[in-house]
Amino acid sequence: MSATPAPLHRMQYLPMLRSALSEDLGAAGDLTTDAIVDPATSARADVVARTAGRVAGLDVATATFGLLDDDITVDRNVRDGNDVTARTVLATVRGSARAILTAERVALNLLGRLSGIATATAALVAAVDDQRTQIVPTRKTTPGLRLLERYAVRAGGGMDHRFGLADGVLIKDNHIAVAGGITAAVGRARDRVGHMVNIEVEVDTLEQLEEAVALDIDAVLLDNMDSATLAAAVRRTPERIITEASGGVTSATVRAVAASGVDLISVGWVTHSAPALDVGLDFSPTS
Amino acid sequence: MSATPAPLHRMQYLPMLRSALSEDLGAAGDLTTDAIVDPATSARADVVARTAGRVAGLDVATATFGLLDDDITVDRNVRDGNDVTARTVLATVRGSARAILTAERVALNLLGRLSGIATATAALVAAVDDQRTQIVPTRKTTPGLRLLERYAVRAGGGMDHRFGLADGVLIKDNHIAVAGGITAAVGRARDRVGHMVNIEVEVDTLEQLEEAVALDIDAVLLDNMDSATLAAAVRRTPERIITEASGGVTSATVRAVAASGVDLISVGWVTHSAPALDVGLDFSPTS
Amino acid sequence: MSATPAPLHRMQYLPMLRSALSEDLGAAGDLTTDAIVDPATSARADVVARTAGRVAGLDVATATFGLLDDDITVDRNVRDGNDVTARTVLATVRGSARAILTAERVALNLLGRLSGIATATAALVAAVDDQRTQIVPTRKTTPGLRLLERYAVRAGGGMDHRFGLADGVLIKDNHIAVAGGITAAVGRARDRVGHMVNIEVEVDTLEQLEEAVALDIDAVLLDNMDSATLAAAVRRTPERIITEASGGVTSATVRAVAASGVDLISVGWVTHSAPALDVGLDFSPTS
Amino acid sequence: MSATPAPLHRMQYLPMLRSALSEDLGAAGDLTTDAIVDPATSARADVVARTAGRVAGLDVATATFGLLDDDITVDRNVRDGNDVTARTVLATVRGSARAILTAERVALNLLGRLSGIATATAALVAAVDDQRTQIVPTRKTTPGLRLLERYAVRAGGGMDHRFGLADGVLIKDNHIAVAGGITAAVGRARDRVGHMVNIEVEVDTLEQLEEAVALDIDAVLLDNMDSATLAAAVRRTPERIITEASGGVTSATVRAVAASGVDLISVGWVTHSAPALDVGLDFSPTS
Amino acid sequence: MSATPAPLHRMQYLPMLRSALSEDLGAAGDLTTDAIVDPATSARADVVARTAGRVAGLDVATATFGLLDDDITVDRNVRDGNDVTARTVLATVRGSARAILTAERVALNLLGRLSGIATATAALVAAVDDQRTQIVPTRKTTPGLRLLERYAVRAGGGMDHRFGLADGVLIKDNHIAVAGGITAAVGRARDRVGHMVNIEVEVDTLEQLEEAVALDIDAVLLDNMDSATLAAAVRRTPERIITEASGGVTSATVRAVAASGVDLISVGWVTHSAPALDVGLDFSPTS
Amino acid sequence: MSATPAPLHRMQYLPMLRSALSEDLGAAGDLTTDAIVDPATSARADVVARTAGRVAGLDVATATFGLLDDDITVDRNVRDGNDVTARTVLATVRGSARAILTAERVALNLLGRLSGIATATAALVAAVDDQRTQIVPTRKTTPGLRLLERYAVRAGGGMDHRFGLADGVLIKDNHIAVAGGITAAVGRARDRVGHMVNIEVEVDTLEQLEEAVALDIDAVLLDNMDSATLAAAVRRTPERIITEASGGVTSATVRAVAASGVDLISVGWVTHSAPALDVGLDFSPTS
Repeated sequence: MSATPAPLHRMQYLPMLRSALSEDLGAAGDLTTDAIVDPATSARADVVARTAGRVAGLDVATATFGLLDDDITVDRNVRDGNDVTARTVLATVRGSARAILTAERVALNLLGRLSGIATATAALVAAVDDQRTQIVPTRKTTPGLRLLERYAVRAGGGMDHRFGLADGVLIKDNHIAVAGGITAAVGRARDRVGHMVNIEVEVDTLEQLEEAVALDIDAVLLDNMDSATLAAAVRRTPERIITEASGGVTSATVRAVAASGVDLISVGWVTHSAPALDVGLDFSPTS
Repeated sequence: MSATPAPLHRMQYLPMLRSALSEDLGAAGDLTTDAIVDPATSARADVVARTAGRVAGLDVATATFGLLDDDITVDRNVRDGNDVTARTVLATVRGSARAILTAERVALNLLGRLSGIATATAALVAAVDDQRTQIVPTRKTTPGLRLLERYAVRAGGGMDHRFGLADGVLIKDNHIAVAGGITAAVGRARDRVGHMVNIEVEVDTLEQLEEAVALDIDAVLLDNMDSATLAAAVRRTPERIITEASGGVTSATVRAVAASGVDLISVGWVTHSAPALDVGLDFSPTS
Repeated sequence: MSATPAPLHRMQYLPMLRSALSEDLGAAGDLTTDAIVDPATSARADVVARTAGRVAGLDVATATFGLLDDDITVDRNVRDGNDVTARTVLATVRGSARAILTAERVALNLLGRLSGIATATAALVAAVDDQRTQIVPTRKTTPGLRLLERYAVRAGGGMDHRFGLADGVLIKDNHIAVAGGITAAVGRARDRVGHMVNIEVEVDTLEQLEEAVALDIDAVLLDNMDSATLAAAVRRTPERIITEASGGVTSATVRAVAASGVDLISVGWVTHSAPALDVGLDFSPTS
Repeated sequence: MSATPAPLHRMQYLPMLRSALSEDLGAAGDLTTDAIVDPATSARADVVARTAGRVAGLDVATATFGLLDDDITVDRNVRDGNDVTARTVLATVRGSARAILTAERVALNLLGRLSGIATATAALVAAVDDQRTQIVPTRKTTPGLRLLERYAVRAGGGMDHRFGLADGVLIKDNHIAVAGGITAAVGRARDRVGHMVNIEVEVDTLEQLEEAVALDIDAVLLDNMDSATLAAAVRRTPERIITEASGGVTSATVRAVAASGVDLISVGWVTHSAPALDVGLDFSPTS
Repeated sequence: MSATPAPLHRMQYLPMLRSALSEDLGAAGDLTTDAIVDPATSARADVVARTAGRVAGLDVATATFGLLDDDITVDRNVRDGNDVTARTVLATVRGSARAILTAERVALNLLGRLSGIATATAALVAAVDDQRTQIVPTRKTTPGLRLLERYAVRAGGGMDHRFGLADGVLIKDNHIAVAGGITAAVGRARDRVGHMVNIEVEVDTLEQLEEAVALDIDAVLLDNMDSATLAAAVRRTPERIITEASGGVTSATVRAVAASGVDLISVGWVTHSAPALDVGLDFSPTS
Repeated sequence: MSATPAPLHRMQYLPMLRSALSEDLGAAGDLTTDAIVDPATSARADVVARTAGRVAGLDVATATFGLLDDDITVDRNVRDGNDVTARTVLATVRGSARAILTAERVALNLLGRLSGIATATAALVAAVDDQRTQIVPTRKTTPGLRLLERYAVRAGGGMDHRFGLADGVLIKDNHIAVAGGITAAVGRARDRVGHMVNIEVEVDTLEQLEEAVALDIDAVLLDNMDSATLAAAVRRTPERIITEASGGVTSATVRAVAASGVDLISVGWVTHSAPALDVGLDFSPTS
């Protein structure tokens, strides 16, 4: 099984990659490698998945090596969105031994994190594969890495949600509290935002749902409802309004939640708490 | 139980915080809050731990609110390094409702991640509390967040390891392969690096250990050894050389590893795979 | 008449303001003022509209003075979105004469440009005031200033359109050419984008319109149609799909275009070709 | 007719170009193109002037495409400073369809703006072609784009003025007010600035002119004078002092102003209010 | 004796100061101070000149402390441009002991360097005090510090020269070689540059001088001439053209060079090779 | 004689190089070269040492030319760390005359400064060549250039010291004053810092030395001691603790200081006060 997200442009991640490498290099650089490895030494290194999982971030991660040496080459065996078994060689990097050893940790940190997110997402997606429900991410991402973590969710087979605060109106309980009610909040939003912006409203109860779906909204976020309430909520929501369930959905519960018929299930933990995939580098000097 | 890391200077994290907020704001800003919340509305928000854990990043996270409004005030009830029970109010934020709602997600993302790391570390530290072994982190951190994640480890009671490639020599298997042996690698490093730089050597076997400890090194990394080998390795290492065990150590195995008598146990997963602590904001408009 | 856009956060424009001031200061600073004006001299300066128009950017522009001196004060007489007559004093700046003279040009350049955009927009909005049609901007903005220029359009009474490439799908002729048809293009987009993203399709003919409105789209861009075709197009578009007219609409033609019944008229020239409003500074030393 | 400004170095504008592209890409990138266009699709696109005008910014604008794909090629048919008729193909871009479509708007926004400035300047220059008077720009430029807008003025046949506050002393009415007179102001400036810095003084009346030209100054700015006063002013100014007329000069009045014999006429509106030239992209997929 | 340069704006040097502090702090911060000094400890520190000299950079250097703590206060006893004797307390810094100790080295590095430049310049200025000749700097400054080093020259009593490549035309031997002669080079420059830009020509011989002074130039650089040739050159140069001598002028030779009657003597070594002034911090904890 | 420091990665210095070039280019660029030199003109330029010395920074400095033109080639005759005689051609640069002339000053400023540091260091190193003592640098470097200046020290044959505040604990008199004694200060540091961090203590007297060497420290800084005291201090320090002498050591005194038997002599002046090496460019147009 696989999902193929549209590739990112290099200008979308190179600055982040340079910062990450600078963070590890510090001011004085790689003391160990600089002392031990002759700049003329070449090497070959296989990027290997130590455990099975869904790959994400292979292009991004291996671009790290090229930041240190223009002549590094990378041959990929798999693509982002592919599932791999343990011990799969994902890609082979060839070139300056010094560049490979110095960039190794940054490359693996990224690849492990993004593949971990894709793997966790893919498991959820697989669990509801026979249903119409789609898995979507949240804004609970790592500061500075949202673009890549969202990309990893897509590699895991998830759909997208709004990227950030500027990409859609999501009216939450606190907005409702300030506005003095759902109807007032939606009214103000509808008056202000352009025609390309969708409005989603978070509701905690069926009463709130009733108020929300009577308004000109595009989606409704059914927050922390039990299965019965969720199913009732889906039934009471008109077809034209997207339903999204959220709140502590895990691999164990995702099928039950999907059974309610919701369009979307959003999960924060795939980006904030999924364990990294174990990836490593099998290295050998070649000259 | 608690650990109090030296506080960070604001200039060490404000640029990261600005980037994180910009990432969420996008170009067009918080469409929802801007449409619904009057700029003159004030609010009070309690930052709450939804589950028990060790707090880290409270100053950093709450500084996010101040980036959007100079008049925000933050009153803290606990300090980084404190253990808290579920439903503890960690801090109270007062000021512009608009600023609080817009900065909320970035603040919580950081606080949850850092407290998650501190909580995971604290559990390991507690498990070996009656022993001399200390828990230390690795370079397997999130790109761009190493400073904060290392701080979180200290808040969890961990000691520090080298921050990055420039802060100590750690000779790994690949360096040894390039140099043609441990003795050659250490020799080159000792000739090159200054007197403030320590040298640690990674060894996989007792034979390698024997070669390493005969050299002028400061620490030895005992990689992926079983308990018996580890204990033997510790016995064969002279007092003056620090011993560090690494490789898949979990809460379940940490006591057994510590029983070998190693000085340090390094754990990558506390920074790359620890789940975030569940933190939230209890918000109420005040005017 | 006036329109009040939600105020921007200072962190959304201060970096741009610093760059603009640095661009004018160069490396060596304001040679004239530094040579002539004693740092201790104070002054008062009225920011004045030399001609009538709609104000936009007053907070942003006057924040420039504060970048050079913490003790500058600004008292505003009007707000963004207000209409003013010629010779209106918009705000009064008090403080260091040196800071005021050095920052003057940057402040006026911004205020003039943004107010020019607001003024042009307001004229279009006024022309169709008795109709349901709204004026919206395009992505034809000045590189680096889109946030502010879009804000100025809102101050002029315009609604918003998608901010950039990431904020909605707008399928243009070239996308249709690549996809091999409207149906194919919409299909691919619908499969890929999340539920918060709207899809708009550009059509040049009624045949294309027919194909487009049969699909699951949210808006249709009626490009460069004459009045009769436009009216026909609006009639053939179902209520649930927003209609947008574009293509060379001016103050002279906007009423006629609106008469077709379109929901939105988009105009690029208000951001790329509107003349700046004439604003100046009436300055007097006070000590 | 044409004017050939010295080409800019790429490092002088690439950072601005990257910012402009980032502004349009947002965090999530080009949703439309990413969803619809296969990364392997190639295309050819002609950059076309829709109306006649003077070209400026062709190298800069077309460099945008290369930021997204290293293999883009650009063949230019004209050079900056050339006059073109409507429907002229200025350049042909070949390569990744995805890169071309995503970068299109930024490239056209820049090319349109800069060519608009060049076109407006060229019209003024042509109007006084048979006279010794030269057209010069002011500091009334768009924040962040002064380098490019000044370049566009040169492509239009204009001469240069001081770039910013650090590139010459221009003593204006407010400086004179602070100093307590022209003589005092010039004295302070002459004492302070180096031998490579010229001093120009703004005067509103013939009395002020008389005071100014008696001093060691290099140029005099004759501000907002009517034709008769201007002519008198030019006569009373010694040969060694450059005369510059400013204040609301348009295409309609420029010949009359030049008839006064002034050396320079400065016009702010060519940079702050000139309409953009209408430029577009004729695109066709090639594979 | 003293010279008072116009003060710099904080925005002109704060970014450089932040970079310098970050360079010293590294990623992990001040390990020593963080481990030893309680954040609550206050201190007082006198900034002291260990040897006599001319002060420059006191405001800039002491601003470093404020970057780490908002509550630091600085009381200055002298101003930039003042001469001080050994052991003079230049300023007293009070506030967080931690901030003072961490920022100390960056502050002293800057103050020592800038005061060293001012001291060297002041010695040259004093040596020709009874003559009309002025001392000017070159572009031989430290990368990244030109603004501050030029300021230090002014604090030493020197005049300014062009700041960089954009601030005046200086035609050197290599430009002449490319152009095929002085006359051709000056002609091209005069045609291209605006009226605020002065033109200076470097000449090595009296023959070259003769060619140069016949042209419309503003200054002539007499490069590496012996005293007799220099005197002859000054005599042959018309009054309206500034003469500048350059080439290995030291404290020992500056009077002899000035005796030739040149207007300016430029010296590169005051910025690239002047020894730093010895400055230190006398520190005492106060609580 | 020569010393070969490990080469720096280009990403470690390119941003600094771009800033330095931007500083010189200003906003408007190289007015002289742009006016006089046709973009199509090629040239050859020899980078020449005008006086004898030790070379450092040749790769870094010549990379400046490539920032302005991709087709520049550089052929090096020597390597960093080599000694050269006066008039040695260090490297030959070929390519765009415009790029060479515009980048010349930045390239030479860097090469001169770094070679000056290397030359000064090499003289000290040579003076103690027959002894075990090594020369090490301090943190008294130029803001923004520490990485390069430290590299130059290594090219001069010096060893390294801690790079900055994060790379080792150096307990100075002020830290001792705050802590209330050496023992307390060392105790706090040892408790806080990781096993890869060495601790060095500054002592002024033999009494302080006695207290320090009884503690678990790695090095001792013998500050400003006379020869006899220094020799006594070395004798009283156990073998396992590194001894470092500091305080006004010059070429004249370095042998005497080394005779005390100290391991290291640290010298601040090689980075803050060494005169630049005289380097120049011999340029000739080739087409």
